Parts: sequence; structure tokens; C-alpha cells
Amino acid sequence: MLKLYGFAVSNYFNMVKHAMLYKGLAFDEVTTFPGADPAYIDKSPMGKVPCIETEQGCLAETSVILSYLEAAYPEKPLYPADAFQRAKVNEIMKVAELYIELPARRLFPEVLAGKVVSDDIKAESRETLTKGCKALAALIQLPESPYVAGDSVSMADIVLRYALIPAGMCAHAIYQWDLVAEVPGLAQWSKRMAGQDISQQLDKANQEGMAAFLQAMKSK
Amino acid sequence: MLKLYGFAVSNYFNMVKHAMLYKGLAFDEVTTFPGADPAYIDKSPMGKVPCIETEQGCLAETSVILSYLEAAYPEKPLYPADAFQRAKVNEIMKVAELYIELPARRLFPEVLAGKVVSDDIKAESRETLTKGCKALAALIQLPESPYVAGDSVSMADIVLRYALIPAGMCAHAIYQWDLVAEVPGLAQWSKRMAGQDISQQLDKANQEGMAAFLQAMKSK
Repeated sequence: MLKLYGFAVSNYFNMVKHAMLYKGLAFDEVTTFPGADPAYIDKSPMGKVPCIETEQGCLAETSVILSYLEAAYPEKPLYPADAFQRAKVNEIMKVAELYIELPARRLFPEVLAGKVVSDDIKAESRETLTKGCKALAALIQLPESPYVAGDSVSMADIVLRYALIPAGMCAHAIYQWDLVAEVPGLAQWSKRMAGQDISQQLDKANQEGMAAFLQAMKSK
Repeated sequence: MLKLYGFAVSNYFNMVKHAMLYKGLAFDEVTTFPGADPAYIDKSPMGKVPCIETEQGCLAETSVILSYLEAAYPEKPLYPADAFQRAKVNEIMKVAELYIELPARRLFPEVLAGKVVSDDIKAESRETLTKGCKALAALIQLPESPYVAGDSVSMADIVLRYALIPAGMCAHAIYQWDLVAEVPGLAQWSKRMAGQDISQQLDKANQEGMAAFLQAMKSK
């Protein structure tokens, strides 16, 4: 059976778990905090979560895993059939990863750990986030369509949903800026995504997992 | 006919061009420097190069384009047929992108523009590069196989080759560190890759394009 390594507070973990639940896959969840077990590096060479274990071996990196899940388990597709339309879904995922989530993560030391992030980094991150929101608005099909890549839910909806959770939190904390309001249709789509059964299940696990996560970080 | 936008000094551009030449695709090359033409953002929403124009529209982001090229032009494959082995190729590409190339790019201001990069950033980048090299060593098939993912050249060889050009240069300039010597088999593989016709064609275009690139940066 497939194994999924990671922890319920990790938004990358939740991207993969959401896709696995959507596809109805059977899997064992192995709670794993980064840095807790030196042997974990044999599964995930940067020590990062999530990672999945298949009969053929392990795979790390969220985008790699998501693409593998679609190829290995094509039923209940999360990509369109056409190669160009598939690439457009990947392009939205890439913008969410590089220009929404990563710049927001640079603010984590101040938002999550009470350290000071320099004004230079704050300005840089804000510039990237501003461009990222514009790129997103240009690429997505909202508000005309219910989902970011059209009429059906896709990997891009899943990745964007969980990328926006830390990004929205950091933008609000540092710039008092509502990122979701920046992109037409995104607020309504956010509510639509949050209402789905799988989202609710993962959001609940996230809340319930927070205490164990903080404990693991403390003991590091 | 396909169009490829970018410039010969860009290593991302060269990843895509190498794959297109390997597959024997017909395409027009449109020399494009970032920020030079405001209308370019309609093709590439972050204004980045490379970008390709197809009959169905444009695609930006190197990894998105490479994956599309394989799906749309499966002849002369650059991925294995098996889903898990394909994912392993993607995992090597991702490590090259996030943990070899991106940390090295943080050193660009000092290496390319004569500005000072802080000791904190230098230490952080070095730590990521060290972990990235270890991850790479764990994932690749060198020196037992001639190519990083086994007996055949793959997208991972192409991406790693052009990721290592700026990364090697920055590691050498800032840390006097030979990145290629860090990973068993990589030096020999580097020479093997450099000897290929397409590599030689692109390296020559890179050298010849340097003057035009510097001019474009100056006039910005």
C-alpha cells in the first residue's frame, strides 16, 4: 500500500493528501516532522515532507508527487486530457509555488518565530507577490468558470488552495494585505474550495495537529 | 510553427532550446530580453524567459514547457516510459532547480553586478548547495550509468547541465568551491554532455550572445 509521510500542518503535505483522497487511493499516513529521524533522508533526499513510498521506491517534492499520482492513477483525473491544457494547469501551479508561496515563506521568520525580517526582504516579497497575483489573474478562468482551470477541479485548484493559506496569512500579518481580494473571483472560489468534504477534513486535521507540530518544533 | 522567446545567455532558455533541438522540432527563435517589451507579458505573465508560442497559445516556465514538449512531441523521448521512473527524472530536475540553481542565483548580485551579498545569505546558500549536492548524489545513476537517470539522456541531464553553469560559476567565485567535484561522476558526465553537438552549438551561441545581452542590461 502507498505510504504518505508528513504532518497535517504542512500545506505541501495537504496538497498531496488532498489529491490522494480525491482519487480515492488507499494509503497509510506516517506522521513525520522534518529533521526528527535521520534515516528519513533515505526516503526524501533533502529531508523534506511530503514524501510517498510506492512499491518501486520513494518520491519527494510535491510537484513531482502530484504529477506521478496523475500518471500512475489516471482515474478521477485532476488534469485535462489535452497536452496544452495540461501545461496551462502546470503553469498555474508553478505561479502559485514560485511567486505566491515562496515569497510569502520569506516572511515566516517574523510571522511564525517572532524574528525580524528586513525591510529589503519585505519589499522584495511584496513586489513578487504583486506580480504573482497579476500573473495568476491572467492565467486562471475565474470568475467565469467555477475552477481555476475551467469547469472541473484540477491539480491547480488543490495547489493554489494550500499555497494561499500561508501566503494569505503572511501578507495579512506583514502588509495588512488581503491577497485573496487581489485576484478577481478568488474569494468566491476560496469559499467553494473550503466547502468541499476533503478540504474540511484536512483543515480539521490541520487544527488538531497544531499542538503536536509545535511540540516537535520545540524539541528540535 | 513553434516560436521560442528568450536569449542565448539565459540558461533556462538553453534548457528548452536543447530539448527542442534534441527532438528535432522546427521553431523560430525570437530574441527577447526580460523587461524590454511591455507587450511580452501577454505571452509570459511574469515577464520571464523562456516562453514558447504554440498554435494553442503561449506557455511560460521552463519546467512547464519541458513537460509540455515531451507530451506534445513524444518522439525522441527525453523521459522513460514508466511512471515511477519518469517521476525520478522529475525529482532530479527539481533538486537541480530548487537546491542547486536557486541558492546560487542568490549570489548573482555580488558575482555579476559587483554588489555585496550578506554573509548570512552566503552561509544559507552554501548550506542549501551542500544539501542539494548530497541529494543529487543520492538520486543520480552516475558514475555507474552514462546519464543521470540511467543509460539514456533525459530531461534531467539537460536541466542539470544548464543549472550547473551559473551554480558552478557562483560557487567558484564566492566560496572557491568546485561544485562539480562534489558529486561522484559529475565531472566526467559534464565533459560528456559538453561534447554533444547541441551543447556545443548552444555554448557557442551563449558566448556570441554575451555582448548583446550586456548591451540590453545596460540600456534597461
